[in-house]
Amino acid sequence: MAHIKLLNEQLPGIVGLLDYRKETGYQLSALAELLLRGDSTLSSGEREIIASYVSHNNNCHFCHTSHGAAAAAHLNKGPEFIDDIKHDFQTTPISAKLRALLNIAEHVRQNGKKVTDADIQAARNEGATDREIHDTVMIAAAFSMYNRYVDGLDTWAPPENEAYMPMGERLAKEGYLSF
Amino acid sequence: MAHIKLLNEQLPGIVGLLDYRKETGYQLSALAELLLRGDSTLSSGEREIIASYVSHNNNCHFCHTSHGAAAAAHLNKGPEFIDDIKHDFQTTPISAKLRALLNIAEHVRQNGKKVTDADIQAARNEGATDREIHDTVMIAAAFSMYNRYVDGLDTWAPPENEAYMPMGERLAKEGYLSF
Repeated sequence: MAHIKLLNEQLPGIVGLLDYRKETGYQLSALAELLLRGDSTLSSGEREIIASYVSHNNNCHFCHTSHGAAAAAHLNKGPEFIDDIKHDFQTTPISAKLRALLNIAEHVRQNGKKVTDADIQAARNEGATDREIHDTVMIAAAFSMYNRYVDGLDTWAPPENEAYMPMGERLAKEGYLSF
Repeated sequence: MAHIKLLNEQLPGIVGLLDYRKETGYQLSALAELLLRGDSTLSSGEREIIASYVSHNNNCHFCHTSHGAAAAAHLNKGPEFIDDIKHDFQTTPISAKLRALLNIAEHVRQNGKKVTDADIQAARNEGATDREIHDTVMIAAAFSMYNRYVDGLDTWAPPENEAYMPMGERLAKEGYLSF
């Protein structure tokens, strides 16, 4: 049971919270829609990887797994891709640019002040633009919020990767305002 | 200079970032408006204290000081109130309920999983409702985002409390969609 009495205790992770207070629910969904599916030269698959990576490092199982499933759906991968993100892409190669952006995202996750000039320069050396650096910092910051909202109220989450695949498919195809 | 080239480098803290990408700017402002001035049984002054307290503990000078100034404006206090928040209210007494909510907010700031059943029970014992606990967690989570956005892109901020008082006044009176 969550720390507060939800309206529908069957709804997992953030879904029960979006339902609990619909005004915040709408704002949080609209922000996710913009950051993960709105205008950007980073693909939605890349942006979902950043979201899932930050969430894994924050130990937020629901967010890590659902956004890992959304990344898998964008990239036509199976549920094992969720573990690839968790294991830092030991089996799936990613671009040097995305790896440099993930390094920035991890430093944002720790604390904004941990992002160094060298982190930024390393991303630029791999072709990252100012706007891509901006979007990466914004996504990492936003998931530092979503993760804390989901875990700070102690919501429940299914354990296995497979349970998240239909949700990931829906997030990738229909987006964050479809719930 | 910030980590990225802003459109207007005179604008401090998050203001330069809201201007840099106006779509995210609007969403972030609308969320702050809802969380800090929207419907809640916590006063806007109490909510601004939570925002400022989390921001101070995250070492985000711009967010701590601007939201401290907004709290001061709501509560008819001077710029020294910003330091009262920083110094954990050594000189200004606050309610036992707000102190219990600040304890929850600090645990959310560290990581959502740090919030314990005992933290929640302590807040309930002081009269906090489920919705007040929800709103506290949501505000602490949101400032974990705003702080990282502001510092992750290395924006500049005026040092002295007094520079923030007109902004705090405007945030308290006209709100977050007035910028």
